[in-house]
Parts: sequence; structure tokens; C-alpha cells
Amino acid sequence: MHDQDIAMIPGLADFPRNQWYVIGYSSELGRSPVRRDCLGDPIVLFRTEAGKAVALFDRCPHRGMPLSKGKLLGDSIQCGYHGIEFGPDGKCTKIPSGGGLPAKMAVKPYPLIERAGWIWIWMGIGAQADVTLIPNHEELGMEGTGWYPDPGIHVELKANYLLPLENLADATHITYLHHGLIDTGNVAAVPYRMVVDDRRVRVFRDFVNEPMPPILAQVFHLRGERITRTLELTTFVPNLVMIRNSFIEVDVPDPQRRVNTLIVAVTPGNARYTHEFSAFGNNYPQQYAGRFDDLKKILLEDVEAIEEIQTMFDRLGIDRAPEVSVKSDEPAIRVRRLISQMIHREREGAAAA
Amino acid sequence: MHDQDIAMIPGLADFPRNQWYVIGYSSELGRSPVRRDCLGDPIVLFRTEAGKAVALFDRCPHRGMPLSKGKLLGDSIQCGYHGIEFGPDGKCTKIPSGGGLPAKMAVKPYPLIERAGWIWIWMGIGAQADVTLIPNHEELGMEGTGWYPDPGIHVELKANYLLPLENLADATHITYLHHGLIDTGNVAAVPYRMVVDDRRVRVFRDFVNEPMPPILAQVFHLRGERITRTLELTTFVPNLVMIRNSFIEVDVPDPQRRVNTLIVAVTPGNARYTHEFSAFGNNYPQQYAGRFDDLKKILLEDVEAIEEIQTMFDRLGIDRAPEVSVKSDEPAIRVRRLISQMIHREREGAAAA
Amino acid sequence: MHDQDIAMIPGLADFPRNQWYVIGYSSELGRSPVRRDCLGDPIVLFRTEAGKAVALFDRCPHRGMPLSKGKLLGDSIQCGYHGIEFGPDGKCTKIPSGGGLPAKMAVKPYPLIERAGWIWIWMGIGAQADVTLIPNHEELGMEGTGWYPDPGIHVELKANYLLPLENLADATHITYLHHGLIDTGNVAAVPYRMVVDDRRVRVFRDFVNEPMPPILAQVFHLRGERITRTLELTTFVPNLVMIRNSFIEVDVPDPQRRVNTLIVAVTPGNARYTHEFSAFGNNYPQQYAGRFDDLKKILLEDVEAIEEIQTMFDRLGIDRAPEVSVKSDEPAIRVRRLISQMIHREREGAAAA
Repeated sequence: MHDQDIAMIPGLADFPRNQWYVIGYSSELGRSPVRRDCLGDPIVLFRTEAGKAVALFDRCPHRGMPLSKGKLLGDSIQCGYHGIEFGPDGKCTKIPSGGGLPAKMAVKPYPLIERAGWIWIWMGIGAQADVTLIPNHEELGMEGTGWYPDPGIHVELKANYLLPLENLADATHITYLHHGLIDTGNVAAVPYRMVVDDRRVRVFRDFVNEPMPPILAQVFHLRGERITRTLELTTFVPNLVMIRNSFIEVDVPDPQRRVNTLIVAVTPGNARYTHEFSAFGNNYPQQYAGRFDDLKKILLEDVEAIEEIQTMFDRLGIDRAPEVSVKSDEPAIRVRRLISQMIHREREGAAAA
Repeated sequence: MHDQDIAMIPGLADFPRNQWYVIGYSSELGRSPVRRDCLGDPIVLFRTEAGKAVALFDRCPHRGMPLSKGKLLGDSIQCGYHGIEFGPDGKCTKIPSGGGLPAKMAVKPYPLIERAGWIWIWMGIGAQADVTLIPNHEELGMEGTGWYPDPGIHVELKANYLLPLENLADATHITYLHHGLIDTGNVAAVPYRMVVDDRRVRVFRDFVNEPMPPILAQVFHLRGERITRTLELTTFVPNLVMIRNSFIEVDVPDPQRRVNTLIVAVTPGNARYTHEFSAFGNNYPQQYAGRFDDLKKILLEDVEAIEEIQTMFDRLGIDRAPEVSVKSDEPAIRVRRLISQMIHREREGAAAA
Repeated sequence: MHDQDIAMIPGLADFPRNQWYVIGYSSELGRSPVRRDCLGDPIVLFRTEAGKAVALFDRCPHRGMPLSKGKLLGDSIQCGYHGIEFGPDGKCTKIPSGGGLPAKMAVKPYPLIERAGWIWIWMGIGAQADVTLIPNHEELGMEGTGWYPDPGIHVELKANYLLPLENLADATHITYLHHGLIDTGNVAAVPYRMVVDDRRVRVFRDFVNEPMPPILAQVFHLRGERITRTLELTTFVPNLVMIRNSFIEVDVPDPQRRVNTLIVAVTPGNARYTHEFSAFGNNYPQQYAGRFDDLKKILLEDVEAIEEIQTMFDRLGIDRAPEVSVKSDEPAIRVRRLISQMIHREREGAAAA
């Protein structure tokens, strides 16, 4: 009945588990438990007294209370219902009402890695956590000499993650959904070059001697009004989009080639709820004070459209909501295919194990 | 387990598709897209530059965005997400990001007819749209010499359409649900005459030398206080009720026989959501300024009761929510039977085709 | 897949029907219909002109309107839609639009018993209503010489009844969920004695020369600050918990042994909605004015925790939300077993009949 891989239908797309996902900002974590959903799992996040970030399955195995409603005692989290305590490894350290500590009285711990202000969580089989699967942060402009990482804002959507992922990687909606805010009305029609490898779908568009709208003029920290630029939209499957402008001003003396990068990590909360965590990675230190307010304004236009699409999909069902793709959807189709392959490899691995 | 046609159980009754339904008022349509649900379909309505009313399936086939969130460009509607445009016939007229115009990139157009301030939509197979199936507007008092059409107000209910349809066609609830507002406490007990044909169930009740409550005195534009009248409640299956009072004043000099008609079109938005579009069709030109406020007050008493019944039905399920009918339900039972036959004929036609 | 009786999994536990449940307070019932859900049934409650309490299934069998939206005429309740009337026995007494009174036009009546300010309803087969199944009200401190019954407050929870029932019967959460309000931090660790019979699970804990927090000092009407007490938590399966403190002051002249009893009846509204009706039964007449405000504060802490647990359970499903019990859960496990046996006996009885 369906001519496409059901795992990749936007509105109900599946996601791989053996991957790192951004679960929040380093600045969010401290000595109060933080509650957040990821890939359908309830997660509680906190720091030990020494400052190490910890993530545990957020459900006390005793009677099902969210641990995030409890409090920290040293490096343990104490359930707010009956006072049972769990260490950073998820093992029970105390049962106040007595008896032994049963082995089953434990919660799943999740590997975490902090990098450049972001916290990455490994949602798959712990023993398979492979740090090389995290995108190269130097490539993102978030680590390394001459880059200035600048996280960022958290936006939530009531929609399947594939909708915002494709939205972010798609230049052709900018002219229509964000009319005038971040382009001059010509992005959709500009031809693109696509480069695909096993992990990235990269799309490039060139613009010559182009006037900039006010928001971009400020985030690019322009002295003049016109630039020549290359716009790169790169999707790191399954969950991150890098939007990079490499530009040079054309109407000022002594122009410098500069690079502005907006990175947005897309993390499924569950099948129909998604987080976006964003950051900038520029090769110049100046930060426009209103950058996150402007970013939020633009992302919320996306959120409104995406939630309309999810609602329409849920209402009509798959059979009444087919897609008709156009030429410029080629990168999105490639992204779907890469994620689909990733999920299939993961399942084959699980079946073989 | 059920002794009645399951398709006609109030609370989840089915509806025929090869019929005209009122979808709105002529006055609502202009150069801004209007979004409305009908028979489970999302519809966008607008007018061309020449003023012709247009209805299209309200979902861009590209990525599922409601077209009603977009804007009109000439006679086309432009999707607000990627700028794809569709003409009044539903065919794609432009894809800004380039490539050809695939035949599949099209949305279903719906036949529309405007009559006496109402817009009728054909929800079935386009080629079978038969204008003679629209109720006779002269009979309704909305067209023809000596009639004064006067639309009207839109009310929405969270309930299956059969509940409001039967409610409107039922005189016996007036005394109880609307106590004193539009009768003098004697409607339920008055005997009725019923006349049924293949499309209408007509019910007549006679009242002699009867005092009128204030609301009716005003909408009937009475000089005195008492009238002799015939109350006609006619259901045009599957979706319209005409409530007509033919009356003559008994306590004024030189009385005239006059006719007041309230017409209410009942349009399923979906299986559990219904529109009521109302209008007056009188043979006298005087319009009481508060007529629609009073009508709304009465309809909202109906809405409250009907939504309680739907909630009760949904909560208990069919098996725990049987109906016990009484003598005065005879007209409603006949209406159900006519609609059921209509649906069965439609399905047989579809199966034979 | 489940190592426990599925009927007794907290979050979706089943309930016996052939039992008495508290449905409200005597003070709530008068000549206006009261609407309340019990074991999934919609119920309407009112008093006859002579003051007798009446409970009927709250759905007019004619067209499904809640009778509680109607009004009382003498000892009958009149449906607010078409005016059909039903007597206290549930039989139809009038159909205003005429015709006979069909036998099917009737609603189920429920046996009621009023006792000490509470109204008990029998939700099972009427002929099997056995008044001896109501807990002994002298034992509860709500009837008999020297007891002062004092009902009470109604609290509602969006959760399965087994969660609040176990919550109320569990002393070990007091220290953590209500920290400091009603204990001095040592309840969880105090050893208990358990006594079980076929209807009750009784749990006792002794405290010697213990300081009292302000709330308990007031409800116990203490002159001094320290008491020696026995705390008894008795669950009367399937639906009532008695929390009794037998205490004697240790720092005042001429101390008296006194008994404070908090009784909470737990009544399923439906599978995921529950009522708590509470009362005090003390052997001293003094009533602290703020007792119900304080009780409400504590119960709402329970409600918040319980609703979190229900939400977690519904979200994860049975297979991802197993329980790991500890030593102090022994009484709760016994309660579950007794209720499970009750349900199984009831079903065997029904199958045999």
C-alpha cells in the first residue's frame, strides 16, 4: 500500500537508538534534577558533587515515581516517595524501610559526553557507545582554534523529528515561511550542489553581491550591506543540521572572509515530540545581543508550520496523506535513505547478537 | 446484538457523500482563505478575482501543509511553506524551486453552488454532482417572489450530526429543554400529522388561539398577543431541517396570514463534530434586530444537551447506551431510515461502478 | 510475561462490584440532583420529599441525556430533554408526548445506606446486597458511645484506585513525601507488626516519648509536646483505610489515653479516576478548626505523587513499568491478594449463576 519505507514516513518516522543525541546544555545541569524525555525514555539529569553529569532512567523501580521529583543527597538521587536512593551508576544505595538491596532495584544509566556546552547522550546499548559517532565539533565550528561556540536555545515541537530535521536542512522554504526575515526572496530558485557521504548530506548554494536583510546583517556583524556568500546546509544523520554561511563583504574596505554557523541538534522526545537544541559556531567573536531572540522567532514560524503538518498527518492517516516530492527534495530523500539504512543496520545487528 | 442499523446509531451515525451540504455563507468568502472541515475532509474556501467561490482539499500534496495557511496570488492559492501554487481547478500552476509540474501535484476541487446567501458543496464523486438534489429554495422561503431570505449564524457542536438533526426536527423537547422560551408549555402533548416522501419527513401540529412568548412575538412581528398557527417541522434528508410557522393573529383588526421559516442546515465536520448553518425565510420583510441573538441562545441550549449525550455515548459505548423510543420518535425513526437507504444506495452504486 | 495477577497491577487494577462503596456525604444530598461516577457507572443522587436518599443510573434510556441535568418533581426525576420522569425505583412514571410506558423505559436503582454522615452504595447485583459487608462503624470510631464522627472532605485523583489505597495504608512514605508535616522523620525505619484476617490487613508501629509536629499536636489536641503512641494502619479491603493513633501524653499532669482516627474511603470513579472520602472518628470531642485544611494539604501531596505514577505507568506500559517490592510492601501485597481473591470469587459466583 505504501511505496516508501514506512520507517521513514514523516509524521511517524522511526529513529535509530545506537546513536548520540543532544539532550541539553551544560549550563542546565547542576544540583537540581532535570527531567527530559529522549527517544521515548524518561530521563533525569544531574551533576555529582564533583560536577560529573549523570543521566538515569527517570522511574523508581519500586513504585514507579519519577526520580526527578526527588532530591540529591551527595552523589545519589533520593526518590521523593519512599526515600530509596540510587547512585550515579543507577544502583540502589539505600532503602530506608529496611531489608536488603535487591539487584533488580536499579535504574538504567546512560553514557553522557559534554562538549562545547552541549550534553550528548547515548541512547543505545551501553557497551556499544562509540564516541567517534559524535559529529566532529571542529567541523561544526564549536571546537578548535579560531572558533567561538555559542549555545543556545531549546525549542520543543509536538511533531515527529523527521519534520523539523528536513525543515532545517531545506533552503527552499525560507523565502515563503520566513518571507523577508532571512533572505531577499531568491533562495528557493537558486540552483544547488549536493555532496553525499555515508553520514552527511551537504547542499551548497552561491549568492553574488547580495543585499542582506536586517537580521542577517546583525548576526553576520556586517559593516556594509552586501555580501557574496556560499550557503551550506549539511545534515549529519540522524539528528543534526549545520547551516553555514561563508561570506565576504563587497562594499567595505579591507573585507575579511568570515564564517557564521548555526547548528541545530534535533532530538526525538518521543515519536511525536521533538527537541531542538541550537548553537552558533562562528570564526569571529562578536555576538549580536538579539541573536537568540531572532532565532527563536524564526524557529517558532517553523514550529507552527510543522505542527500543522503533523496534525494534518495524524488526522488523515498515511493513506490519505501521501507526499509528492519535487526536484529540491533530493537532499531530504537522501537523508531519509541514510537514516533508514542506519535503522536497518542497527536491527540486523540486534538480530545477529 | 443491535436491533437497529448500526450506521444510523446516533453518536456514530454514518453520512452519505454523494450529496450537497451547506459549507458556509456567501458573506464569509472573499480574498482570504477560509478553513473548514466537511465530512472529514479539510477544505479551503476562497473567491477568484472575478468573485467565483472555490473549494479545494486543504492539504498541499508536496509536504502536507494546510493550503489555508497560505495566500492568494491572482486566482491561485500559494502554499505558505514552499510557495507551490494551485489554481481554482486544484492543478499545480507553479513550483518555485524548479523542475516540472507533476500531474500528481494537484488537490481535489469540490463543486460549489451559491444560493440565497448559502454556499453548497458537493462532497461526492464530482461527475455525479446533481444540482436537483439541493432542496427547493422556494419551498424553503429563501428564493422566489414574496420571500425574504435572511442568513444566518454558524454554530459548532462536538457531536455526531444525527443528534442535532433529530434535535431540530423534534418538537417535543421544546417544552423541556427550552422551557418557556419558545412555547407555552404545551408542544410535547399536541398530536401531530406526519407526511413522508422519498426525501422529506414532514410533521405538522395545529395550535388554536394561543398566547405567544416574547421571543416568538418578536420574530413573528405580532401586533397582538395571540395567534392560531400550524407548526411544520420538515426534515430534508440527509442534512436540513425547516421549521415553519404559518399563523394568523386572532386579537388584531385586519389580520394577515403570515409565514415564518427557520431553516437549519446540519453539516458533519467529521464523525463527532458538526456545523449548523441557519437562515430565516419569511413572507414578511420585518426583521427583529435580536433574532440571531435569540436563536443562538436557543441553539446553545441544544448544543449543551447534545454534547452531554455524545459524551455519555462515547463513555458507555453502544452496548451500554441503547435507546428506548417513544411514539413521538416516529418521525426521527423515519429520517434515520431514509438516510440509511441513501447510504446503502450510494454504496451499491459505488460497488457496481 | 507478568509474574503477578494482572487484575492487581497498580495503574490498571480491577475492582470488585459486589461491594459497598462510599459515594458521598449525607450533607451533599438534597433536592438538587448530584452527579457522580462510581465503578464506571454514571450515577445521579438525590433525596425524596421524605428525605430518603436515592441513586439511579444517570442516563435517560430514551435518548441518552444525563438525568442529573434534569430536575426533581416530587419523588421523581424529570429528564431535562423530553420531560420523561422516573421514580426512586427507576421505573418510568410519565412520558409527556404520550403513548404507553414501556417496561424498558427504566433506569437501574442502586441500594444506598446512610451511616454516620457517609452514604454507601451497593454497585453489584441488587439482590445480593449484604449490609454486613460494610465495615463495622464502631470499629472505625464513627458510631457507638464515646466516639465523635466528623466527616469530611472529598478529593479526586486521576489514577487507578489501587495507587491511593496503597498510599494511604503505607506508613513508609510519610517521612519522604510529607517530610516533617506529620512525622519527625523516623516512621519509615520503625519496625511493624502485621495482623491479617479475611477482610483486613492491620499494621502496627509503636513510638515512645516522641515529639509531635504542629499539625499532629493540633489534631491530637495536645496540652504538651510529647506522646507515646501506637500507629495503626488498617486496610479494609477493597476500599477503606483506617489510620488510628492511640496515644498518651508523657509531659502533662493527669494524662488520658486518647484515640484519633482518620478514615479514608477510596472509591473508583472509573479505571483511572478515584474518589477519596475522609472522616475523623475520635474518642474526644474537640475539633481543631483547621483539621480539614491540613488534611487536604497532605492528601494533595499524595495526589500529585500518585498522578505522576499513573502517568508514568500509562506512558511506559506494563512491560516497561515493573515493580520491585521491598520488605515494607508486605502489607500492600497482602491487600492486593485479598482484593484479587474477592474479584475471583465474585467472577466464579457469576459464572456459576
